[in-house]
Amino acid sequence: MFTISQIAETVNGTIDGNPDLPIIGVCDLKDSNADHLSFIGANKYEKFFHQSKANAVLVGKGFSMDRKDKTLIHVDNPAISFIKVVHLFHPQDIPIETIHSNAVVSPTAEIGANVYIGPHVVIEENVSIGDGVQIYAGTFIGKNTTIQSGTVIHPNVSIYHDVIIGKQCIIDSGSVIGTDGFGLVKDNNTYHKIPHIGRVILKDSVWVGPNCCIDRGTLSDTVIGEGTKMDNLIHIAHNVQIGENCAIAGQVGIAGSSILENNVAVAGQVGIIGHLKIGEGSTVAAKSAVFQSLDPGSFVSGVPARHHKNRLRQDVIINQLPDILNRIRKLEKILPITEDNSIDIK
Amino acid sequence: MFTISQIAETVNGTIDGNPDLPIIGVCDLKDSNADHLSFIGANKYEKFFHQSKANAVLVGKGFSMDRKDKTLIHVDNPAISFIKVVHLFHPQDIPIETIHSNAVVSPTAEIGANVYIGPHVVIEENVSIGDGVQIYAGTFIGKNTTIQSGTVIHPNVSIYHDVIIGKQCIIDSGSVIGTDGFGLVKDNNTYHKIPHIGRVILKDSVWVGPNCCIDRGTLSDTVIGEGTKMDNLIHIAHNVQIGENCAIAGQVGIAGSSILENNVAVAGQVGIIGHLKIGEGSTVAAKSAVFQSLDPGSFVSGVPARHHKNRLRQDVIINQLPDILNRIRKLEKILPITEDNSIDIK
Amino acid sequence: MFTISQIAETVNGTIDGNPDLPIIGVCDLKDSNADHLSFIGANKYEKFFHQSKANAVLVGKGFSMDRKDKTLIHVDNPAISFIKVVHLFHPQDIPIETIHSNAVVSPTAEIGANVYIGPHVVIEENVSIGDGVQIYAGTFIGKNTTIQSGTVIHPNVSIYHDVIIGKQCIIDSGSVIGTDGFGLVKDNNTYHKIPHIGRVILKDSVWVGPNCCIDRGTLSDTVIGEGTKMDNLIHIAHNVQIGENCAIAGQVGIAGSSILENNVAVAGQVGIIGHLKIGEGSTVAAKSAVFQSLDPGSFVSGVPARHHKNRLRQDVIINQLPDILNRIRKLEKILPITEDNSIDIK
Repeated sequence: MFTISQIAETVNGTIDGNPDLPIIGVCDLKDSNADHLSFIGANKYEKFFHQSKANAVLVGKGFSMDRKDKTLIHVDNPAISFIKVVHLFHPQDIPIETIHSNAVVSPTAEIGANVYIGPHVVIEENVSIGDGVQIYAGTFIGKNTTIQSGTVIHPNVSIYHDVIIGKQCIIDSGSVIGTDGFGLVKDNNTYHKIPHIGRVILKDSVWVGPNCCIDRGTLSDTVIGEGTKMDNLIHIAHNVQIGENCAIAGQVGIAGSSILENNVAVAGQVGIIGHLKIGEGSTVAAKSAVFQSLDPGSFVSGVPARHHKNRLRQDVIINQLPDILNRIRKLEKILPITEDNSIDIK
Repeated sequence: MFTISQIAETVNGTIDGNPDLPIIGVCDLKDSNADHLSFIGANKYEKFFHQSKANAVLVGKGFSMDRKDKTLIHVDNPAISFIKVVHLFHPQDIPIETIHSNAVVSPTAEIGANVYIGPHVVIEENVSIGDGVQIYAGTFIGKNTTIQSGTVIHPNVSIYHDVIIGKQCIIDSGSVIGTDGFGLVKDNNTYHKIPHIGRVILKDSVWVGPNCCIDRGTLSDTVIGEGTKMDNLIHIAHNVQIGENCAIAGQVGIAGSSILENNVAVAGQVGIIGHLKIGEGSTVAAKSAVFQSLDPGSFVSGVPARHHKNRLRQDVIINQLPDILNRIRKLEKILPITEDNSIDIK
Repeated sequence: MFTISQIAETVNGTIDGNPDLPIIGVCDLKDSNADHLSFIGANKYEKFFHQSKANAVLVGKGFSMDRKDKTLIHVDNPAISFIKVVHLFHPQDIPIETIHSNAVVSPTAEIGANVYIGPHVVIEENVSIGDGVQIYAGTFIGKNTTIQSGTVIHPNVSIYHDVIIGKQCIIDSGSVIGTDGFGLVKDNNTYHKIPHIGRVILKDSVWVGPNCCIDRGTLSDTVIGEGTKMDNLIHIAHNVQIGENCAIAGQVGIAGSSILENNVAVAGQVGIIGHLKIGEGSTVAAKSAVFQSLDPGSFVSGVPARHHKNRLRQDVIINQLPDILNRIRKLEKILPITEDNSIDIK
């Protein structure tokens, strides 16, 4: 339980209402509870304000609705402030410094201060683990890999040899980092696997969701830029270069050697073929297949991906194709065409 | 080895043929073996009946083909009866009550009767494990999670904290349940991760195939309804609500806060974007991208998904587009259009 | 460090330049380093030859560019030779014969010579492990499974019971082999799972990338042919039969009972529905959805997949649909059509 004053202090906000109101938790504005605090992150949610059971709401500085029986806290960025309040009510679990007795840690590994290494973890030769790193049960860290300070690796992650994970990264369960990429040479109808000597480098503050796969580079490195966030079941092939602050949604696949510049947003189930460059700030809509490089600031969709507005116009017309065909038939009827061009649509 | 009488008793069926015929196993009707029993689940398979090497066949009550040298067992639902016969020949392996010596089980966990906990399993604080639960090697169960009676969790599964798994569920290897969803707030061009305090709730008799990912809710819960079955490599985002008896095939992705009502069937590689409602009994064909909510009983396909019949008609016309374009050219030729509107198709 | 003579001997090549030149590593031709060796695998890369910092280059027998200050080694197949040189500089790590003290190995398992079994591995009853097999940390091998000689299984793999893995296979982390397929029978609106008694059989030299799922057969087996290579996050359903030397890229899904003949290439994110036959030597382009069987040597693309050349022509016309619609409007204007067929495109 925290009072409105305590919460306002945490988020550096201005109170409009009862500073002594006790708040027992956080909730959604729509799916709400009494004695809870919610937030309005964008104007479109304002319509849920009055019906909400939340007694307190974080709002922007310019919020102008009649607050009636609710207590408001005005802040610069309600969504960011709400994150702080969630952490106030649900402080992150920081495990005590431990190397579990049945973890298998090479004596040649360097382990920093305040590190948590859970049960059944394996840490191979010459691994370097920074201060405050948390490595949960069943995770495997291969030879010569570096995990920098503050990074959290959830259970059953597999990180191969010679990988570099930056500071404050999060790797969710089941992800696999550092496998050889899908490089094959065919000879006499038989494939030969190309050995991969590049690394995987995750810069600071990268988030890799569960069951993702990031392949190592063939001769150079696969690199994920600072602050980039990845959802579930994502496939990043060898030599891919991803810039800073990209957001990559679930089940996306990025093929070999493609480059994403900074601030690219890729929606779910998108595929990007190899050797492309996706320009800074581009957005790729869900399920698209990108077969060509994109200029900075592009917004594309579809299979194959095209500029989104054109795609929408095409889709409207595709929907009308049966009508259009009828119109052509009508034109043909009144014109003296002698050849038979009839088309059968059942 | 079982006789036809023993098998008929198991499935409560009526014998047409030799009750003493010894049967040594079960087989497919087409890819068949002598001394084996098969079944005819639907009329379209009847054509394989006479060529089949199977000496005995489970058939519906109204089955009317000449049985010749085969022994029939008439039942209400041959496919359901066949499942029973498979279990007769291949009884399910129920491990003896064990907590393996190298499993790490918190003393605060409540463990029911007849529980199997395999090697290298980790069970954290305040976990509750119901009677008859089987948890295989290398699986991780986070704090405060509940696994209800009769559920089987295969090797190397990762279940985070505060998850509820119902009774008689099956979770296959590599699946990850309870990760934070892909909720991000951008501030000064930097993403901030939204902490997720909702849970994941799997109702009874849910099957989660291998390498699936089910994210926890942001503020409310992610819920999978009773009897719903999920295939491999499926992505279920935060706050998704799935009804009862849905069937979700491999590599499907369902984005945040979408709702599937009861009895929805989703074929392989389908994507459903966020905040949609898929009406009861709807079917989504393979590879579709659903961008709009669907009325109950819908059958859609394609990218973007449209009603399947319309989609098929459009596809036929799209195939004829080169011809259609020629017809337009012909019309233009015989009409006195002076402007040049020529289109280049190479 | 190796000299050009030593390298030329390894690849059985002919030197054009300085046989005593010391080489300290391998590199890409474009992203290159001094004192390194690179290769030209196809003519299209020749344009990078002169600017490359690599002092030595493996080239084909007919390579005709002026070598200037570079030393060449002429070979039959530069890419294959390059693989040998990479292994020369980066010899593969072969762990010493070990069964780690905390691996749990059934006394009924047969373990060959020179086997490595890492920490936290579980090997159940009646498993057979061939000579020289490497099984890394956290991997689970179920009852009656056979792993033949020379196969490498990376960390945290789950292989269920009664699976056969051939010789010289590679299974990357997180893959799951031998789960029951997605076979359901509906009765009274409730799904019943079909028990699967078929096996999974991987022939020799199969590569399964990370986080793949290969389901066991229902009554017969799921089979992956010799030399077939699979990338990341691939879904292979029950009863699928894949031939020899197929290449299957990331996030592909192949539904139940489909057959891929030999030498089929399937690009990323392709879906192939059930019960199809993909003819020998066919190629399926990225993101395609294959709904029909394909003749040998087919090259298809798109959703639904069509012959690639036709698909490209259709795509060009789809792009021109707004123009085409305008042309139809123009025709309608000059013709005495009285009915209104106007179409609104915004």
